[in-house]
Amino acid sequence: MADQSRTAEQKPSARKQRSDGARSRTAILDEAARLATVEGIGGVSLSRLADAVGMSKSGLFAHFGSKEELQLATIETADTIFEMQVLERAEQLTGLERLTRLAELYLEYVESGVFPGGCFFASVLVEVSMQPGPVRDRVLVFLENWLGTLEEAIGQAQREGSIGADEDPTQLAFEIESSLLLANTQFTVEQSHAPIERARRAIDRRLKDAAA
Amino acid sequence: MADQSRTAEQKPSARKQRSDGARSRTAILDEAARLATVEGIGGVSLSRLADAVGMSKSGLFAHFGSKEELQLATIETADTIFEMQVLERAEQLTGLERLTRLAELYLEYVESGVFPGGCFFASVLVEVSMQPGPVRDRVLVFLENWLGTLEEAIGQAQREGSIGADEDPTQLAFEIESSLLLANTQFTVEQSHAPIERARRAIDRRLKDAAA
Repeated sequence: MADQSRTAEQKPSARKQRSDGARSRTAILDEAARLATVEGIGGVSLSRLADAVGMSKSGLFAHFGSKEELQLATIETADTIFEMQVLERAEQLTGLERLTRLAELYLEYVESGVFPGGCFFASVLVEVSMQPGPVRDRVLVFLENWLGTLEEAIGQAQREGSIGADEDPTQLAFEIESSLLLANTQFTVEQSHAPIERARRAIDRRLKDAAA
Repeated sequence: MADQSRTAEQKPSARKQRSDGARSRTAILDEAARLATVEGIGGVSLSRLADAVGMSKSGLFAHFGSKEELQLATIETADTIFEMQVLERAEQLTGLERLTRLAELYLEYVESGVFPGGCFFASVLVEVSMQPGPVRDRVLVFLENWLGTLEEAIGQAQREGSIGADEDPTQLAFEIESSLLLANTQFTVEQSHAPIERARRAIDRRLKDAAA
């Protein structure tokens, strides 16, 4: 992901380019991540994004080089946003608190419209599921990490005695994630908060059931 | 998308075109439905499908007229396939048997690769969720009908006394569908049967819990 504009810093036009470059990489990728949840990550091409952010295609090319590099950088940006909105806000808690909080933060992240088309990863995962390559691999890593985070919290809760030792963490994480995923899908397509509430009830009930 | 070839139907080649038309509408739409689960319904255009089925774009235009008409016809075909694979195979049963059978048939429909990219409707719903129009509306009708079918079976089971009267059918249908949806998504992207098994366990457990 070389950025050639950085090397040309002498001329006025280059200065403008650099200040564009410095301020706008983050803004471009934020826009790309939003765009991906509306038109698909397949819609995040240099020319489509150039329109969206009002830059020239060649300017964007200097930033990203190829459509695939742009898409991978977009996924990293979405990942950072997800970390800030969800993962980092559920640290230093007991296992059960962390699990409950992760689910709730996910629902808030969907409901508050961080991305216009719902969860970035849910959306892109379905889109690229049949398209082998680095983009799909990267999104799969996200899913594995997310399920792994839920499983870790479940394991911690089991060690702390607040979730029964007979629960299979992988199974329980699947059940929690399933409510979150359907809530995201239905919320996005229907713009109704009812499925978010249904997910809350389903997870609440399931965790009461899992209590040691 | 004007098609000039329609005006030239006097010659022998026109006869071949018509017999193509008679035999191939179903085959074309089957292919379109499969293609939609791999490349998205956005990928089902006259020119893309012409490549896939080895017909001329003008021949396809004679069948469908526009990309949107083709997409809507593709959805009807997928709907018919879903009816045959799932809905019709769960008739004339008690409510609880029907509910269990619908869930199981859905998982078999995913697992057996009726569509290469998993459930047609799960895939297209996510793709078009932010694209208002007839295609999104039609896919939403499918989702509402499917959830309605699950709710009806739950209501029937409640009247028959096999599911508790205190269960909210909408909530319970949401919980069953959520397991099915995540199973579909994970199966498709990972090509692993483990999530299918997890959905079976989740639904089995939930229905035991809901038993009157």
